[in-house]
Amino acid sequence: MKKVAIIMGSDSDMPILRKTKRTLDEFGVVCETHVYSAHRTPDEASSFARSAAANGFGVIIAAAGMAAHLAGAIAANTILPVIGIPCSSNNSEGIDALLSTVQMPSGIPVATVAINGGVNAALLAVQILALGDETLARKLAEKRESDRAKVLAKDAEVEQKINE
Amino acid sequence: MKKVAIIMGSDSDMPILRKTKRTLDEFGVVCETHVYSAHRTPDEASSFARSAAANGFGVIIAAAGMAAHLAGAIAANTILPVIGIPCSSNNSEGIDALLSTVQMPSGIPVATVAINGGVNAALLAVQILALGDETLARKLAEKRESDRAKVLAKDAEVEQKINE
Amino acid sequence: MKKVAIIMGSDSDMPILRKTKRTLDEFGVVCETHVYSAHRTPDEASSFARSAAANGFGVIIAAAGMAAHLAGAIAANTILPVIGIPCSSNNSEGIDALLSTVQMPSGIPVATVAINGGVNAALLAVQILALGDETLARKLAEKRESDRAKVLAKDAEVEQKINE
Amino acid sequence: MKKVAIIMGSDSDMPILRKTKRTLDEFGVVCETHVYSAHRTPDEASSFARSAAANGFGVIIAAAGMAAHLAGAIAANTILPVIGIPCSSNNSEGIDALLSTVQMPSGIPVATVAINGGVNAALLAVQILALGDETLARKLAEKRESDRAKVLAKDAEVEQKINE
Amino acid sequence: MKKVAIIMGSDSDMPILRKTKRTLDEFGVVCETHVYSAHRTPDEASSFARSAAANGFGVIIAAAGMAAHLAGAIAANTILPVIGIPCSSNNSEGIDALLSTVQMPSGIPVATVAINGGVNAALLAVQILALGDETLARKLAEKRESDRAKVLAKDAEVEQKINE
Amino acid sequence: MKKVAIIMGSDSDMPILRKTKRTLDEFGVVCETHVYSAHRTPDEASSFARSAAANGFGVIIAAAGMAAHLAGAIAANTILPVIGIPCSSNNSEGIDALLSTVQMPSGIPVATVAINGGVNAALLAVQILALGDETLARKLAEKRESDRAKVLAKDAEVEQKINE
Amino acid sequence: MKKVAIIMGSDSDMPILRKTKRTLDEFGVVCETHVYSAHRTPDEASSFARSAAANGFGVIIAAAGMAAHLAGAIAANTILPVIGIPCSSNNSEGIDALLSTVQMPSGIPVATVAINGGVNAALLAVQILALGDETLARKLAEKRESDRAKVLAKDAEVEQKINE
Amino acid sequence: MKKVAIIMGSDSDMPILRKTKRTLDEFGVVCETHVYSAHRTPDEASSFARSAAANGFGVIIAAAGMAAHLAGAIAANTILPVIGIPCSSNNSEGIDALLSTVQMPSGIPVATVAINGGVNAALLAVQILALGDETLARKLAEKRESDRAKVLAKDAEVEQKINE
Repeated sequence: MKKVAIIMGSDSDMPILRKTKRTLDEFGVVCETHVYSAHRTPDEASSFARSAAANGFGVIIAAAGMAAHLAGAIAANTILPVIGIPCSSNNSEGIDALLSTVQMPSGIPVATVAINGGVNAALLAVQILALGDETLARKLAEKRESDRAKVLAKDAEVEQKINE
Repeated sequence: MKKVAIIMGSDSDMPILRKTKRTLDEFGVVCETHVYSAHRTPDEASSFARSAAANGFGVIIAAAGMAAHLAGAIAANTILPVIGIPCSSNNSEGIDALLSTVQMPSGIPVATVAINGGVNAALLAVQILALGDETLARKLAEKRESDRAKVLAKDAEVEQKINE
Repeated sequence: MKKVAIIMGSDSDMPILRKTKRTLDEFGVVCETHVYSAHRTPDEASSFARSAAANGFGVIIAAAGMAAHLAGAIAANTILPVIGIPCSSNNSEGIDALLSTVQMPSGIPVATVAINGGVNAALLAVQILALGDETLARKLAEKRESDRAKVLAKDAEVEQKINE
Repeated sequence: MKKVAIIMGSDSDMPILRKTKRTLDEFGVVCETHVYSAHRTPDEASSFARSAAANGFGVIIAAAGMAAHLAGAIAANTILPVIGIPCSSNNSEGIDALLSTVQMPSGIPVATVAINGGVNAALLAVQILALGDETLARKLAEKRESDRAKVLAKDAEVEQKINE
Repeated sequence: MKKVAIIMGSDSDMPILRKTKRTLDEFGVVCETHVYSAHRTPDEASSFARSAAANGFGVIIAAAGMAAHLAGAIAANTILPVIGIPCSSNNSEGIDALLSTVQMPSGIPVATVAINGGVNAALLAVQILALGDETLARKLAEKRESDRAKVLAKDAEVEQKINE
Repeated sequence: MKKVAIIMGSDSDMPILRKTKRTLDEFGVVCETHVYSAHRTPDEASSFARSAAANGFGVIIAAAGMAAHLAGAIAANTILPVIGIPCSSNNSEGIDALLSTVQMPSGIPVATVAINGGVNAALLAVQILALGDETLARKLAEKRESDRAKVLAKDAEVEQKINE
Repeated sequence: MKKVAIIMGSDSDMPILRKTKRTLDEFGVVCETHVYSAHRTPDEASSFARSAAANGFGVIIAAAGMAAHLAGAIAANTILPVIGIPCSSNNSEGIDALLSTVQMPSGIPVATVAINGGVNAALLAVQILALGDETLARKLAEKRESDRAKVLAKDAEVEQKINE
Repeated sequence: MKKVAIIMGSDSDMPILRKTKRTLDEFGVVCETHVYSAHRTPDEASSFARSAAANGFGVIIAAAGMAAHLAGAIAANTILPVIGIPCSSNNSEGIDALLSTVQMPSGIPVATVAINGGVNAALLAVQILALGDETLARKLAEKRESDRAKVLAKDAEVEQKINE
């Protein structure tokens, strides 16, 4: 099974990517985590991207805030699917990061998930890998079922809780 | 090779999806196109999504404008990767569609591309399929090289054109 | 008298819907509360909507945050009036939820109230039911009068309080 | 059957409300149209609202642009359900009108539809009136079915049109 | 000298208007404070406005949040200059209130100040009254001079404080 | 009677200020028009402002687009009431100009009207001058009445026009 | 004198950069123009940036639209001052490009000018070079004087033109 | 070596400019700090700007919030490069300050950095001064290298920290 790379532009994005890591771990997906900045370590970022396919990665997840160029900079250097997580920051709800991540020019797509969407980035990576892996596909179906059950469990309690 | 589904919420989004179709055609990816509205034909949309994997699809591309629920409604009914294209409309530059497509809750990701990003949706689909298909991977690398060459050709002319 | 359904996409929206429930209770309107996610339990959401009229409901109130598809997904499956409450969330003041709820395509309207407008959703439901119910209409008029009296009571104190 | 009032703040909003009128006509709903400005004719607007219920109206639709106070000003003077249509204008895509219409304070709801949503305002009014009118309910179901058929007809042609 | 009216749509706006009151007090301008809601007490609001000129007022300051109709509703009923203060609220930084206050249609202006601009609303009222009152004009000039002196005092200390 | 100054930051704003001029002319208010840029002619702008009161002006209207500093720069140099008109431009609907005009710091208010609100700026100036001028006050009341009549004339025709 | 580089991400930005080029020509500043995309030709972009100082450049101007990473990608690879021009595009007024250009993380600044601000980018470059070049400084002062004269010429005509 | 001026519109912006000062100190750049308000002390602000070049300054950094006119007002009175820092404030994330700072009209550029970008403003000033100062250029290269090393140190720890 191909590996997933988790790249963050700054370790201040760690809390969001911790959820990404845990979700990938639940699915038994092997992943590797890095801190590479598109601006402070551009060579390391692009060089990681260029060799990612050869190094056994199947998907790269990149998270950054503000003028979030990281996912785009990675995507420019690989043909692997790149998933971008726009992160909110001290001074911003994350609209800057969302637009900087999603509005990529024709030719170099970034698969963008919700602002701070650490879990969904992992699930999207698993969905992509599951195209060639029956076990992952089954686990995804089970996770959907379990999420559904959790909502229905909440539903079973809500008539009482709403009156609290 | 798995097929790609192209779903549009309304045929007013056709000009954007024509670019998606042409790009997939260039790569020799087989695709099927549908008009299904999340709101006017919810059953057809979800029933297509539920049987998509079994019907040989590997990726679903969904495009919609305004309160663009289509990609999310599809994603809720399949574990295939779903790519969302937010579309601008008569009354809006597409921020409504972007937020409605990308801000998915935890559990059900949509891989969102740029507003009106018809070409990039196709390329992202190809990048996903290329994980299990060497030929597609090679074509993607060639396309990158050809895009690069086009930019450099523009670069060769720009000193003259800038003075026109 | 027809019942009102209160549906929330996640139990994190409970504090807002508690106000909805209390307001409906004050008017003696019978209501039923559910947690159904447009994405995690799409079948339960649409199946509730499809049978709502037959089950004695007159109005459905649906609340969700982020890419808030719930009200639209409900509305797509019933001809009952559906009231949407866009909810703010950890990462957003609720503009994403507002646009996702209100910008519905032609054919499937959602009666959208203010961001986090739990009380107004209930009042709008009562106003709709009051069209066929004199008692509710009278209670609404009394509530208006009482709200007016509260403002005037504040007005009576304000010259003193402003100097505190 | 109760009547529907269509109020516009300015006759520049006529093209949007023409669609409202035509949709109501299709359903055989009797309606009355007025131009009343919340700011230039505040007395006429509030006095219409105060006597609307007694004059046989069941729902009031109010459309305005910019600082769109009209729907709120009407709603403040009646307990009938008031549907607000925020209109775009020469200088604005309509976000100003949307926020001015939807962000109503607790106590006085306005059922807001999409920017320039003339058709949906009419449909929402019909859905409200249909609660007490089986014929309208049946016509709404037929309209849903006919809208669904139109989408499916588009779907039948799309494989060919996408290649044009 | 003419009086200034301070009207707030809700007593939750009190902290902002307290600054308005204190600033007017510093200038010796007589003022009267009221809580009137454009929506919950529309009659009191418009009736106050209609008789304001006759009752000795020269300027009306109106503050409200969310779909802030109050200043416009007052302005529609008087030819006195009306100053609008858009207020932020629990769920919003105040852009909704700003657009609802400032985007008035042709014919009925509202002199809008900054979001939560309680002091500036008072100063603008004083500037207007000072057109016919030499004493106020002199006090305004003194206030400007004293504000300038405060900035220069800060300037004198800044080289030291910047290193703390 | 005091004069009104109309200052524009660029002659591209002329179409908006032409309406300002015509409205002031209708009221018989004497005015003087200037093109002064806050950035290209800062001295002329501030020097005009400093001597405006002594030169017989009562109100200054300032219009600018983009980073619209003009009204604030004028206001910083006079205690006369300054009315700001934020103007849209080629690249912007005018939100930049609105925020640059209205968000003034405590101490220096600008009475901001709607984006491109040339007529309302004039009316606000007249309302301010009318505080000390019975004739202007009477003309304003007449204008209100005439505006009201125009709306009611539109109202009289609308039942027919809506069906065209 | 050091040279200025003008880099555009796509030749669709040519009309804006033509103004940049002409302005630099007026000042006799030698410049070189390139089309390099941060995403389609990342190596050429960064390699140009890395050698720019050694190749005699003093300032680099970079223009791009949408998720405008170009200026940041250049800035990451040089310590020369980099001026960013955010460009509007077919689908956007340029807020996406503005935020993507200006919201750079600590360590790598981009000197951002207005959306589509081709002339100002050139002037800022000249202002920077003029720190070490008396002739440029004198020309800048003359340009300021000539701009001032143009405004005053407009001012001389405005009293007449406003009545046209 | 030329000096850098740091000007803040209010001492509430001190925390941001402290970072600017410390960064300049690290590079051994001599700087002078002032509190000048574009609106409360317009003369001091413009008079500082007019004499800045003659007084040995090479770059001016200006920081302000809300309708942030300070950088533009400084820039209007000098041909030195002016760097603008838009500051967030109590009521705003800083979009108002960003637009007021960056959207300067043609002729008077302001080199705008990120919202609250105190460090980057200093670095940009150093980059500008380094054009004529080899020592500064060397220090900048060292700082880049040290920033890069810090990111790589974070990268070395991240595989462990992500699991905490």
